[in-house]
Amino acid sequence: MIDTVSTVSEKAALPPGTLVHVGEILVDHTRVTMIDYNPEGYEVVEDPSDDRLAQAADNGTVSWIRVVGLHEVEVTRRLGERFDLHSLVLEDILNTQHRPKVDEYPGYLFLVFKTFAWEDGETLRARQISLVLGQGYVVSFEEGPDSALDAIQERIARGRGRIRRMGADYLAYALLDTAMDGFFGVLERFGERIEEVEEEVLEHPGPRTVAAIHQVKRQSLSLRRAVWPLREVIGLLQRGESELVGDNTRIYFRDVYDHTIQIMDSIESLRDIMAGLLDVHLSSVSNRLNQIMKVLTIIATIFIPLTFVTGFYGMNFKHMPELEWKWAYPVVVGIMAGAAALMLAMFRRRKWM
Amino acid sequence: MIDTVSTVSEKAALPPGTLVHVGEILVDHTRVTMIDYNPEGYEVVEDPSDDRLAQAADNGTVSWIRVVGLHEVEVTRRLGERFDLHSLVLEDILNTQHRPKVDEYPGYLFLVFKTFAWEDGETLRARQISLVLGQGYVVSFEEGPDSALDAIQERIARGRGRIRRMGADYLAYALLDTAMDGFFGVLERFGERIEEVEEEVLEHPGPRTVAAIHQVKRQSLSLRRAVWPLREVIGLLQRGESELVGDNTRIYFRDVYDHTIQIMDSIESLRDIMAGLLDVHLSSVSNRLNQIMKVLTIIATIFIPLTFVTGFYGMNFKHMPELEWKWAYPVVVGIMAGAAALMLAMFRRRKWM
Amino acid sequence: MIDTVSTVSEKAALPPGTLVHVGEILVDHTRVTMIDYNPEGYEVVEDPSDDRLAQAADNGTVSWIRVVGLHEVEVTRRLGERFDLHSLVLEDILNTQHRPKVDEYPGYLFLVFKTFAWEDGETLRARQISLVLGQGYVVSFEEGPDSALDAIQERIARGRGRIRRMGADYLAYALLDTAMDGFFGVLERFGERIEEVEEEVLEHPGPRTVAAIHQVKRQSLSLRRAVWPLREVIGLLQRGESELVGDNTRIYFRDVYDHTIQIMDSIESLRDIMAGLLDVHLSSVSNRLNQIMKVLTIIATIFIPLTFVTGFYGMNFKHMPELEWKWAYPVVVGIMAGAAALMLAMFRRRKWM
Amino acid sequence: MIDTVSTVSEKAALPPGTLVHVGEILVDHTRVTMIDYNPEGYEVVEDPSDDRLAQAADNGTVSWIRVVGLHEVEVTRRLGERFDLHSLVLEDILNTQHRPKVDEYPGYLFLVFKTFAWEDGETLRARQISLVLGQGYVVSFEEGPDSALDAIQERIARGRGRIRRMGADYLAYALLDTAMDGFFGVLERFGERIEEVEEEVLEHPGPRTVAAIHQVKRQSLSLRRAVWPLREVIGLLQRGESELVGDNTRIYFRDVYDHTIQIMDSIESLRDIMAGLLDVHLSSVSNRLNQIMKVLTIIATIFIPLTFVTGFYGMNFKHMPELEWKWAYPVVVGIMAGAAALMLAMFRRRKWM
Amino acid sequence: MIDTVSTVSEKAALPPGTLVHVGEILVDHTRVTMIDYNPEGYEVVEDPSDDRLAQAADNGTVSWIRVVGLHEVEVTRRLGERFDLHSLVLEDILNTQHRPKVDEYPGYLFLVFKTFAWEDGETLRARQISLVLGQGYVVSFEEGPDSALDAIQERIARGRGRIRRMGADYLAYALLDTAMDGFFGVLERFGERIEEVEEEVLEHPGPRTVAAIHQVKRQSLSLRRAVWPLREVIGLLQRGESELVGDNTRIYFRDVYDHTIQIMDSIESLRDIMAGLLDVHLSSVSNRLNQIMKVLTIIATIFIPLTFVTGFYGMNFKHMPELEWKWAYPVVVGIMAGAAALMLAMFRRRKWM
Repeated sequence: MIDTVSTVSEKAALPPGTLVHVGEILVDHTRVTMIDYNPEGYEVVEDPSDDRLAQAADNGTVSWIRVVGLHEVEVTRRLGERFDLHSLVLEDILNTQHRPKVDEYPGYLFLVFKTFAWEDGETLRARQISLVLGQGYVVSFEEGPDSALDAIQERIARGRGRIRRMGADYLAYALLDTAMDGFFGVLERFGERIEEVEEEVLEHPGPRTVAAIHQVKRQSLSLRRAVWPLREVIGLLQRGESELVGDNTRIYFRDVYDHTIQIMDSIESLRDIMAGLLDVHLSSVSNRLNQIMKVLTIIATIFIPLTFVTGFYGMNFKHMPELEWKWAYPVVVGIMAGAAALMLAMFRRRKWM
Repeated sequence: MIDTVSTVSEKAALPPGTLVHVGEILVDHTRVTMIDYNPEGYEVVEDPSDDRLAQAADNGTVSWIRVVGLHEVEVTRRLGERFDLHSLVLEDILNTQHRPKVDEYPGYLFLVFKTFAWEDGETLRARQISLVLGQGYVVSFEEGPDSALDAIQERIARGRGRIRRMGADYLAYALLDTAMDGFFGVLERFGERIEEVEEEVLEHPGPRTVAAIHQVKRQSLSLRRAVWPLREVIGLLQRGESELVGDNTRIYFRDVYDHTIQIMDSIESLRDIMAGLLDVHLSSVSNRLNQIMKVLTIIATIFIPLTFVTGFYGMNFKHMPELEWKWAYPVVVGIMAGAAALMLAMFRRRKWM
Repeated sequence: MIDTVSTVSEKAALPPGTLVHVGEILVDHTRVTMIDYNPEGYEVVEDPSDDRLAQAADNGTVSWIRVVGLHEVEVTRRLGERFDLHSLVLEDILNTQHRPKVDEYPGYLFLVFKTFAWEDGETLRARQISLVLGQGYVVSFEEGPDSALDAIQERIARGRGRIRRMGADYLAYALLDTAMDGFFGVLERFGERIEEVEEEVLEHPGPRTVAAIHQVKRQSLSLRRAVWPLREVIGLLQRGESELVGDNTRIYFRDVYDHTIQIMDSIESLRDIMAGLLDVHLSSVSNRLNQIMKVLTIIATIFIPLTFVTGFYGMNFKHMPELEWKWAYPVVVGIMAGAAALMLAMFRRRKWM
Repeated sequence: MIDTVSTVSEKAALPPGTLVHVGEILVDHTRVTMIDYNPEGYEVVEDPSDDRLAQAADNGTVSWIRVVGLHEVEVTRRLGERFDLHSLVLEDILNTQHRPKVDEYPGYLFLVFKTFAWEDGETLRARQISLVLGQGYVVSFEEGPDSALDAIQERIARGRGRIRRMGADYLAYALLDTAMDGFFGVLERFGERIEEVEEEVLEHPGPRTVAAIHQVKRQSLSLRRAVWPLREVIGLLQRGESELVGDNTRIYFRDVYDHTIQIMDSIESLRDIMAGLLDVHLSSVSNRLNQIMKVLTIIATIFIPLTFVTGFYGMNFKHMPELEWKWAYPVVVGIMAGAAALMLAMFRRRKWM
Repeated sequence: MIDTVSTVSEKAALPPGTLVHVGEILVDHTRVTMIDYNPEGYEVVEDPSDDRLAQAADNGTVSWIRVVGLHEVEVTRRLGERFDLHSLVLEDILNTQHRPKVDEYPGYLFLVFKTFAWEDGETLRARQISLVLGQGYVVSFEEGPDSALDAIQERIARGRGRIRRMGADYLAYALLDTAMDGFFGVLERFGERIEEVEEEVLEHPGPRTVAAIHQVKRQSLSLRRAVWPLREVIGLLQRGESELVGDNTRIYFRDVYDHTIQIMDSIESLRDIMAGLLDVHLSSVSNRLNQIMKVLTIIATIFIPLTFVTGFYGMNFKHMPELEWKWAYPVVVGIMAGAAALMLAMFRRRKWM
């Protein structure tokens, strides 16, 4: 049985409703961790039993079920049954090429979003995170281990900040917030990358420059596609249209919303700058062409007429009286020098030199 | 009597209300198939009689009347009478150059959408599908046989998935969904096509490149025109504004809606990439022109002055004392070598070499 | 007294409220025809008397008063009094440079729209049609005789289709629909025109190409200006916000609305294609420049150095030992041939040849 | 005490609430004229006393207080007190660099708009007009005397049209309408100007062309900035959201609204045409460059190789057997002629000639 | 303990909820000033005690607590406790890279906005100001001392204008208004800067021009990012959706709103002008290239053929009968002069000279 395919269209070939992982395999085994906490304490259970999971929603604590790795489809199916998730939700969880979104189902909210990171400072890598937020529990699905989520797990362990005192909605907020915080770093590096390209364009444009501009453009597109839908997603959470988001948590979602807007703003500004870069490059290249042509024209314009003169007096006609004259040579040299000087003066007046 | 014309304007010349097929003829005979099913069983009737059709709406099963081939206008007219369709609906069914849309009529919904496929990996082919969704029945009209719809017929036959357990609205969803799934494959190939053109632009732009860019642009336009209206169409179905779409099916329409948004997103991204390609091409070409001009200028700037010097000492004046001097020749050669070296050094400093 | 001026600003110079025809005079005499019809029969009255006109609204039939030619301002004024039209409506009817619109007045609707036709396949000609739709009557104003409206008159005469069985609102629909149908043909020719220009751009761009691109751009603009406002106009009628449009006619207005959207779509697509044409042209021209420059550079780079060599051995120095050597000539010729071969090899490696 | 500054930022340096005229001084003395009228008669009072002004609102007639010239700030302050205007209104009246707008204050409406005129057919001149529309009175403020407003005053005097029979709201309409009518003339001249530039671009583009294109672009910007806000302003009046605009006057405001939309439409079309002009120019210039380069390449490609041949047989080697041959000369000449003919044929095939 | 970091992403690395100043340190010590005033008098307290601050909201006067310098985080935390501010508000106050916004919290409004100033007439410097507007008090946070705010403090001291007679909402207005007024000056200088660049582009475009265009573009972006969000912010205040803004103050916020729209308008116009500058530059450069190429082509086209002729008669063939002819020399010279004249005439006809 096929569990993993690499593109959505391959999946489309399979009968609908088949659960298939669409994407890369990043971990050996799918790991499930359950973190149960309340203001008084917390507990971590690796590979929780079905019974343990059954208590997640009811036991008065906040339960975070963290799933890392998606290719073992059976795990997702089991969790789906346990938490009564719609089959479309399970399909979306396993499809890592999904667009960020929020869907409201009876009893739970389903969220998809992306995190980004630079690899070698040149390539952007995207990872998808899906969240199911129910009454008293959050189930998160990661493609591979994500250090930002580890940090939140640690925060719960240490009981630092207000996370232990708040509900499952705050946990969902914290996970979303950590993803958005990651964007700031990614954009900073991106801004630097654009400045590098900018400098190249203005200072020493070359054949590789065009490809570099094209690459940053494509990267800005994928960033944009990841962030734009979030605006709507978080906007919906912030307006508190779902009962699962409490009033005192909504204020925090408003804050993430602000960050999203600010990130979108930055992306648009960077895109705006990039949009002009190719034109700047073209102008730079044209400027350089002008420089080159000026040099060529100056040289050619001075020497071609002079060469004509030398050719003229190099003709072998028997009867060319000038050739015999005593002062012909110095006079011709003088005339040539004069013509060259005149040309140079003209170029100077036209500001070509 | 004319049954088929090839453009909308030819149709406009005919008296209004005339039923005419606008488009190509893709099958020999119009085929009508009726598929009746419920959770317990199913039945396929080829060329159902009028009586049989009359039972479609009332008999407690879901009836799918599938019409393949549109040029036998009489068939459409008969079905129109049987299911009490408005004459405007019939006109729209037969006009295969219609824009995707949904119209609500008393007792039924009318949907038009397009499917796409690549022919020879370079040309896009569009086909139109019209659906009439009534209480307990769906009538579908195809220009020619469509393998994706065949697959659904087979799914019903095998009783796989939930299709047999759901109503006519789910059948309409399944037909729409299969069309949208087809788009993913089309877009993947389209993305590859653009990458081929991109590489051509960056690596070895030539006169044919411009035409290739122009072609993908036009293709993106026709894809876009097919998908954009769907957003509105499916959005309307998803919001459940019609009684014909039940609450438990609406969730599936929301899923197709998501896919539509994702497809639109991809198209816009591809368009965004393409938008820049012509500029990239222009920049590449300008870069190459610069390279060529540098070579020309270097050669000309070095040799034209030197040729002047050789011409100078090729003049035939009687009185040119230098010509007689013993060391004149080596000195002049030295001066020429020096000038050439100087030029080369200057070019190197300007980074032309 | 002035009855006709050619631009709006000339009219602005006249005292406000003055009725003046703004536009060209296309017919000798303004002709008024009244067509009275109901399912049972119909009657045509040329130049109806005031009494006859007075019955238009009340006599239980649908009355179509058709005015062809606008420069006899008195006719419009008389009809205005008869049907109790606001003076602003009369001003708008006579101003043929008006933007398409719909205005609701107590007791009647006032519509303005445009029809287009090609003249000599290159020039677009626009005509304005104004409609007043009241209870039981339609008054239409044309600049000159319009064959599409003649066709509707004939349809009424022959009693074909549903027109005779429907009310005045359906007549208004039929007039609007016939105008929109005309657009399809206009756009088809326009699409061909653009394809001609496209081919010219890609295959043999020349100085005239730029002007041709510019011309189609302007034409697309005037088409667009005529169609965009119609969307709003027909949208309003389709939503049935006026009592003058009955429920069973609204469905037909929805159909025209669809056509309008489709026409707008086509125009936007054509504009999108055109938008790129100038860039494509620039790229083509640059490509050609590159070709030319390559030829020049190849020739110059091969022969300029060789010419220097010939000049070198053409110098007249007394003491040039090489000149005396027996094998000097063949050696020099060999060196020159070698240099040329080297150059050619280099050009081939750079793919310039 | 300072009464007039020339820029908003100079004003910002003064304490807020200070009444200062921002703009040019166009008349020697600020003139106040009061025109009182009703259907029966009218009266003009120059420099009306405070008592006279106090009757403006109450005396059953329509009173138009017309202020021409803004630099005598005291006049505006006095009128402000008399009509109980908010200090922000007074500040806005005096600031002639304000954006068109409408503000509703208790008891009166405050309107700002612009009129335009051509100076020497090349430069656009803008003037600001502010209106205060109260119950039974209008106060208008002009920078300098405006002939269009004089025309309205005359219309009142002659009792022509419906102005004397209508209220203060109609007077406000008439003033606004006259400004919009002026735009039509301005736009006609602007359209001609653009056509001049267009022809220059297509027929004989030169260095000045770029500057001309840039100038019309800037002018279109200032026109646009003056008209766009008016849409909102008049839209508000037309919807009749203020009690000060009566129902039978609203229909006239709808008419001005239509004109505004039409003017906006024209501006956008002109902008659309202009937007492409620079690209058209670039294409034209590139075409010309191609022409020039073809000439150069043809000449160089034909003569450079031939010159090499002549140089070759101009070498002074002792042992060059060809030089002695009898038929060498005619043979070489023949070869040269053949090579030239070959080149020319090639150019013809490439369509360079 | 870290109090200050320089980028948002550094802050993201710290545990959430940590109060950190993000930005530059502009003053040595954070200074807190409390200004208490009512129509009768006013009082200034430097470094007010906690007790004094506690009275701010209740004592019947308007209290303005002005904080200058943000790096001493403890001060902000203390004020946060005193005025019961949400921890997210405190984080936003300390993050000087925040986007302008307004947030409504129970009991107070939180505003962030930016002021701009030119440094050396070439570089734009942005400063952030945060305001907390409560019942009877305003707390303002500045990065460094701001002279515009000093001016307001002085206005309160002198009791000039209406500020002393109005409430805390008017004070918030005054602070916002002073920031917007600053924009007018900034934009004026910016407009001049753009005109300088424009002139450079049109009169003497050079390699540095491209960089200058790029710089003004970036500056316009940062201005835009600072102003656009303000529209929404002030729009919200103006509509009076918060109880903290009284009815008689709302009219003033409407005025600031107008200014914001006007500033946005100016920025968009300037951006529109700039958008074309690079194209104008490219056109200018192309024009110049044409000029250069014309000179080169004229020189080359005249002299290259002539040089060929001289080379021709410089060949050393034994048997060249022309060389012996008596009139050969003058005839050849004549032919050469004729050819040159012909060329010149041709250039003149093509308008190249």
